[in-house]
Amino acid sequence: MDYEAVINIPEGTDFGPNNIPFGAFINEHGEQHLCTRIGDTVIDLFVLDEAFFFDGPNLDGMMAFQDSTLNFFMSMGRPAWREAREWIQDAFGQISMEDVVNAELFERACYAIEDVELCMPFEIPNYTDFYSSENHARNVGMMFRGSDELMPNWKHIPIGYHGRASSIVLSGEEVKRPSGMILNGEGNPEFKVSEKVDFELEMGFVIGTENQLGQPVSADDALDHIFGLVLVNDWSARDIQKFEYQPLGPFTAKNWATSISPWVITLEALDDFKTNSVEQDPIPADYLRRSENQTFDIEMEVQLTAGGERTSICRTNYKTLYWSMEQQLAQQTVTGCNLKTGDLLASGTISGSEPGSYGSMLELSWNGEEPMVLPNGEIRAFLEDGDEVIFNAYCERDGKRLGFGELRNKLI
Amino acid sequence: MDYEAVINIPEGTDFGPNNIPFGAFINEHGEQHLCTRIGDTVIDLFVLDEAFFFDGPNLDGMMAFQDSTLNFFMSMGRPAWREAREWIQDAFGQISMEDVVNAELFERACYAIEDVELCMPFEIPNYTDFYSSENHARNVGMMFRGSDELMPNWKHIPIGYHGRASSIVLSGEEVKRPSGMILNGEGNPEFKVSEKVDFELEMGFVIGTENQLGQPVSADDALDHIFGLVLVNDWSARDIQKFEYQPLGPFTAKNWATSISPWVITLEALDDFKTNSVEQDPIPADYLRRSENQTFDIEMEVQLTAGGERTSICRTNYKTLYWSMEQQLAQQTVTGCNLKTGDLLASGTISGSEPGSYGSMLELSWNGEEPMVLPNGEIRAFLEDGDEVIFNAYCERDGKRLGFGELRNKLI
Repeated sequence: MDYEAVINIPEGTDFGPNNIPFGAFINEHGEQHLCTRIGDTVIDLFVLDEAFFFDGPNLDGMMAFQDSTLNFFMSMGRPAWREAREWIQDAFGQISMEDVVNAELFERACYAIEDVELCMPFEIPNYTDFYSSENHARNVGMMFRGSDELMPNWKHIPIGYHGRASSIVLSGEEVKRPSGMILNGEGNPEFKVSEKVDFELEMGFVIGTENQLGQPVSADDALDHIFGLVLVNDWSARDIQKFEYQPLGPFTAKNWATSISPWVITLEALDDFKTNSVEQDPIPADYLRRSENQTFDIEMEVQLTAGGERTSICRTNYKTLYWSMEQQLAQQTVTGCNLKTGDLLASGTISGSEPGSYGSMLELSWNGEEPMVLPNGEIRAFLEDGDEVIFNAYCERDGKRLGFGELRNKLI
Repeated sequence: MDYEAVINIPEGTDFGPNNIPFGAFINEHGEQHLCTRIGDTVIDLFVLDEAFFFDGPNLDGMMAFQDSTLNFFMSMGRPAWREAREWIQDAFGQISMEDVVNAELFERACYAIEDVELCMPFEIPNYTDFYSSENHARNVGMMFRGSDELMPNWKHIPIGYHGRASSIVLSGEEVKRPSGMILNGEGNPEFKVSEKVDFELEMGFVIGTENQLGQPVSADDALDHIFGLVLVNDWSARDIQKFEYQPLGPFTAKNWATSISPWVITLEALDDFKTNSVEQDPIPADYLRRSENQTFDIEMEVQLTAGGERTSICRTNYKTLYWSMEQQLAQQTVTGCNLKTGDLLASGTISGSEPGSYGSMLELSWNGEEPMVLPNGEIRAFLEDGDEVIFNAYCERDGKRLGFGELRNKLI
């Protein structure tokens, strides 16, 4: 038995041996196991761990992959994360397996991606959503407040708010159009079905190691706490949001669904795709300052399946964000707030400067004033029932490629 | 051995046999056990449960009190909650114990309150804070926006926002003055220590049974999901809040600490103290309407220990809230958001109409413009290091009394 017989790596895959994402799936006995993925092969980490595969200094005897979620593993910190990644790469990154025992083990651990059902890979104790795209903030300001001027605080601190963790669902789940209090044509509030259901294209980062309550983390130390990234769709009902958001921010307009992609992409994997951050003026306060002004060059795309046809409606890049994830984390903790392993902190809608790069229907249709006409003749101001929203993201440089896979949810 | 030897019930106690609150403590072996309290006696529910004390139809064999938190018990629903309460009242509400085995058991289960260390009795997956006191909303509007007019949405929906669950601490914990970005005298933002640290007097309710994602709960069905109430202090840094809160609401100004009282007071216990709710005009939408417009008559008080002396600085009543807890719960779920067992939903600052009934320093000192002069000569606009804030609350009617105990935290 050789490696190629087990591991199928298609051309242009998001999940080459340079990726090694972490996820979870339901095995044939209905048990939730942690896993990674190489090409189209899912590798059961529970099976490897139980067989003492992870015998390096950080993971030996720790049973890091015998839980049903990644939380314990994520709490262990970067040395353990690196060790797991390298162990997997070493074993699965070679073409043939000499060791018969291992070959047998690997066969037991490997599944074809089409045969498994992925599930939520980590518990999310807390969810925060930022507002870190300057283009998005200006566009929303224009539509909600009639001015594209930023709020006076916007360039001094990463603005964010606490979202709802309980309603975070995985890619593949259907999300249900909400009802709420909405201003009617006469300007009076009325309880009705939302007519402005929207997606928000975001990138989220997942907390690995915690800080103590009362101990802020500076931007320069932030990466130590970040395990990896997932795609985030922060579903929103714009008409409900417009009525409720003053003065305490979005509440029921967003707490009915947030969806995430199933694979956590580690910072180690993204290391090859660093690039310079947007220049910041004014220079931020010390706690927000980083010794290296770097971010990741990640192409992001939104596709919409409407009337049975799939169309690309947005292309943008993670690197266009004004505030970086390190700065977001520093802001989250500046007054001493404690991070919990598994916390999700999302970027806010990522909009580029051109209309084709806006990360929400609100912006793409300019609050419904300029509805999109799709190639199949379908017209969309906001989402309609049955529409499916698909996010994907990838990095590409010097012949290397790495992707996030899809985040896909249907509105019902 | 008789009952009186074990249970000490002082005159005027908050915790007579009509209360039966639920909490948790650390026993002499360092284990966290669930408990209740009668008078000054703490009763270890783990010990009772392990001895098959709870053999009624809902609790028999369920090991409801063998976890370290109340969450499993709270998820069981009202029949189980009532059964536990009645079982405890029946056993401990009589003066003498005939059964020697039980007397031995009860002795093992009983501790003097001064001998135990209380701890967080339930896990809090999500925290929401409302803004349901009309007086408070008008006062804050006046100070932050220069107008006491309510926002156009305020009388149509209970305004709220998602708070931070990770930084909720118990009574007794010290809370640490935060730093953050604050406007200086020249109107420029600067990173500095908050000079406007404040408390907020609130009442929180704790979720017992969950609803499914996508299934809103109407105000009329809300009580089925509510296990009980705790006092909540939503610590706030007003100067940080003022700079950051537009447009997405409070974030780091409040995520550094929220504290709760250690005993959960059940709705069953509060049943004797119902009273009419504030009349609502306009009549709210159907999902917010209740067949009985009732709330609870709960006197609330804030005391401040400053310069070594304890002074009462606020007296108000829970019944003055414009929006009820049922309406808050209905609003939380209106778009389909799912509640989790242990979720905490707090009322927002409870301010009466008179200055002596305002539930925050912000209002009591009118944003520092009218500092309080305490009897010992101490002057307070906001809190100073070493100040201790103590909340208490009680119901009294027809000779019956019931209290919440104290919520007490020192600012350092």
